[in-house]
Amino acid sequence: MFETAELGQKISKEDYKKRVPTLREELLEAQTRLREAGIPVVVLFSGVDGAGKGATANLLNEWMDPHFLVTRAFGKPSEEEAERPEYWRFWRDLPAKGNIGIFLSAWYSNPLLSRAYGETTVGQFDQQLDRVNAFEKTLVDGGMLVVKFWMHLGKDAQEKRFKRLEKNKLNKWRVTDKDWQHWRMYADFHAASEHIIMRTSTGEAPWTIVEGEDERFRSLKVCEVLLDEIKRRLPDPSTPENGDRDGQGPVTAVSPVTVLSTLDMSKKLSDATYSSRLKALQSRRNKLHREAREQKISSIVVFEGWDAAGKGGAIRRMVAALDARDYQVIPISAPNDEERAHHYLWRFWRHLSRAGRVTVFDRSWYGRVLVERVEGFASEKEWRRAYSEINDFEQQLVDHGTVLSKFWVHISRDEQEARFKARAEVPYKRWKLTDEDWRNRESWDRYEIAVNDMIERTSTLTAPWNLIEGNDKKFSRIRVLETVCNNIEERLRRENGDAPKGEAGKQ
Amino acid sequence: MFETAELGQKISKEDYKKRVPTLREELLEAQTRLREAGIPVVVLFSGVDGAGKGATANLLNEWMDPHFLVTRAFGKPSEEEAERPEYWRFWRDLPAKGNIGIFLSAWYSNPLLSRAYGETTVGQFDQQLDRVNAFEKTLVDGGMLVVKFWMHLGKDAQEKRFKRLEKNKLNKWRVTDKDWQHWRMYADFHAASEHIIMRTSTGEAPWTIVEGEDERFRSLKVCEVLLDEIKRRLPDPSTPENGDRDGQGPVTAVSPVTVLSTLDMSKKLSDATYSSRLKALQSRRNKLHREAREQKISSIVVFEGWDAAGKGGAIRRMVAALDARDYQVIPISAPNDEERAHHYLWRFWRHLSRAGRVTVFDRSWYGRVLVERVEGFASEKEWRRAYSEINDFEQQLVDHGTVLSKFWVHISRDEQEARFKARAEVPYKRWKLTDEDWRNRESWDRYEIAVNDMIERTSTLTAPWNLIEGNDKKFSRIRVLETVCNNIEERLRRENGDAPKGEAGKQ
Repeated sequence: MFETAELGQKISKEDYKKRVPTLREELLEAQTRLREAGIPVVVLFSGVDGAGKGATANLLNEWMDPHFLVTRAFGKPSEEEAERPEYWRFWRDLPAKGNIGIFLSAWYSNPLLSRAYGETTVGQFDQQLDRVNAFEKTLVDGGMLVVKFWMHLGKDAQEKRFKRLEKNKLNKWRVTDKDWQHWRMYADFHAASEHIIMRTSTGEAPWTIVEGEDERFRSLKVCEVLLDEIKRRLPDPSTPENGDRDGQGPVTAVSPVTVLSTLDMSKKLSDATYSSRLKALQSRRNKLHREAREQKISSIVVFEGWDAAGKGGAIRRMVAALDARDYQVIPISAPNDEERAHHYLWRFWRHLSRAGRVTVFDRSWYGRVLVERVEGFASEKEWRRAYSEINDFEQQLVDHGTVLSKFWVHISRDEQEARFKARAEVPYKRWKLTDEDWRNRESWDRYEIAVNDMIERTSTLTAPWNLIEGNDKKFSRIRVLETVCNNIEERLRRENGDAPKGEAGKQ
Repeated sequence: MFETAELGQKISKEDYKKRVPTLREELLEAQTRLREAGIPVVVLFSGVDGAGKGATANLLNEWMDPHFLVTRAFGKPSEEEAERPEYWRFWRDLPAKGNIGIFLSAWYSNPLLSRAYGETTVGQFDQQLDRVNAFEKTLVDGGMLVVKFWMHLGKDAQEKRFKRLEKNKLNKWRVTDKDWQHWRMYADFHAASEHIIMRTSTGEAPWTIVEGEDERFRSLKVCEVLLDEIKRRLPDPSTPENGDRDGQGPVTAVSPVTVLSTLDMSKKLSDATYSSRLKALQSRRNKLHREAREQKISSIVVFEGWDAAGKGGAIRRMVAALDARDYQVIPISAPNDEERAHHYLWRFWRHLSRAGRVTVFDRSWYGRVLVERVEGFASEKEWRRAYSEINDFEQQLVDHGTVLSKFWVHISRDEQEARFKARAEVPYKRWKLTDEDWRNRESWDRYEIAVNDMIERTSTLTAPWNLIEGNDKKFSRIRVLETVCNNIEERLRRENGDAPKGEAGKQ
């Protein structure tokens, strides 16, 4: 989920200076129009310490009209506050119509901290987040615009940031013992944060995850997303509601780098290494499969990726190790009539196989947020809510004990062109290449944004995406097989109480 | 919550025969139009055993076109089903576009049973219900109409029903040992059911509670509500979306009896009894208050009721026992400008007082579902979602430890007229009577429906409504004081670990 916020996004000073004046003007105008329309706005910042929550709030105060803007941070409840229900202080401080309230951490602070410190069980944590959802739904139903930013830093970036502050005499005081303590608890905060984002990224009030390392980048990103959300909310006859704006939404307005662009596409394997590793992995795969089947543990493997990225080849190498009765490959294309008469997830539910089997989806439910989004087959409302529907669906699979592996097989644009041309030249491969493939290629940039958003919103600790560098087919096939093996092995290990199960475990 | 479903509602054979032919015709027509519009419908029955879930499903099968209607009951999962995630079998059976699926208990069965048997904690129970909500939201977002009926029987009615079946040789087999076991666990099922209804009565898929004792009544009620929901969902230019239809909604279409009409309005007290009990209660009230203040336990007392029902008099008698610094009475009328600029609940949050104090609301947040509903100040969408917003608000108060007492002070229509006339004749009382009072009187029936719905949807185990027979002012004042005292006493007892706290507890 945070992969997209650890890309080292940067904006140069020059670019920044160029864009700021217009942005400030637009923000002020948007603020005026909010007042005219009488819409109250809550802008909420939460996330990692040192990722710029406070600094960005200060910036908004500087750039917008402070008469109609208040900023609220919430420390330990005062005596006054502790004597009332927990949410009393948030209700009291809600902005009136036409005003903007900037809230720092606020109602997310207590759930996050108490979970990271292990003071709440998962159940209690969920109950707190339910309260959050009910509260935000009540606000939005009442006409409020709620815009939420999760400011993120990777563990290393956070360390760097603290150290830099400590070196500076003026800023030394900013870094406390508690900050370092939390840094050491990074993994706990990470898990709790991801859970928060998954459960509270609702249709009413979705999160935007912002990479916090570069001040200029995060400032522009926050302001552009905020501006965009305000514009969407304002009554404007010229923008139709749910206007599709090329199916892109505001998510990646200023991001010059996507998660795909950081992959090292030069990775490759020699023929010899490939052959020997393939053989070893297929035998490992077979052994693991037999063990999983015996324990009735199912696997689902999802393949997404560019046209001609080599999904088919990777799938063939993976199932080669299995008995044909034990797996099925489901190629997903446009839905048939019966499927079209049902909910879009229905056709995937019906393909779930029995215990101990392997189901491979060659393309999948992610079509909703990829092709259907980009080509406009799904409305913006539909693909936006699909992220949480998909997370929920996958959560049910994993809760049930299924081993879920998700692959995005990536190739560069040039590599795709080369492969298309090769296909066109080889007669027995020509059928693979359609006009549609060439058309899709033209939408590459829009697909890349959609892929980036998909990974941001659906790569979770329970069901992470595996990004596979696919320019070298040998490399990608091995990576896929290896990952599937590792996932099954880990699941078996958990099943057998953390000790790797040896031959003795059979029978 | 179930008060409104234990009223002994009945429909005579004659009435029934009169209404059925039109109803059947309309149902068939609605079904045809559903098919044309391609809308899938789920009709779900859950509730108390013996309350007619199966019988009503059979009736719908008989009255509608069975080609486009399937009925599904779900027993213990089959081997096939147990090997997939829990919801697989529900997804598989979902109706296609234009079809109706009748589901018996379905996804509510497991949460209800495992909670009633104490196999799940409250946290786990809530997680299951969250899954239910997410599932239903996904269905509704996907275009499905979901209509849910909770079939209810009181404990005595259920016993009667089982005994009647047992007497009949042909039906004896229908009553199993398990049925009797569940009957003995009535309180557990009741608590779990109420929790289910509160948490899963969402804007997308609200529950309708149906009294199941009289077959004719429940049949008509289910069919009329279903018909109404289908009509609301069908595209129809002549019915504007969210049309207000006199602010009534479908809820009480066939109910000839409201919960108010069952009150015994002849209850009264003699002057002598009144005086002595009032004195005793005020002294008890004072003592309890001092103890509660010391323990920082706050009280909130909510008064709703007809104009001239005697709310003011009851409030004065209750606060007479308190120090003026310890309580405040908040009269609620139309919101002021500042309040209007915020969410409708905001003004109630801001009036919450500090620990140990008493806040009396003379009218309250219930205005949203009473006057604002009936007079059309709130849209149907707004007042419909207010029920769960209010339940959530009150839950937060109670979770915080506040003692919440809610009173509906009831008088008969005749009594109100007599009191209005008396006010008009006594010069110093004339100010109390406005033209609006006379106007409101004309809307009596519509208010009565709104009150009935309010009690059905917001009388919960944690915050039950107290219905006060108010024709005799002496009687109602005593009942109010007594109830408030009992509630505080119970709270103190819990605080002190179930043993009543004596004088020894002080300092």
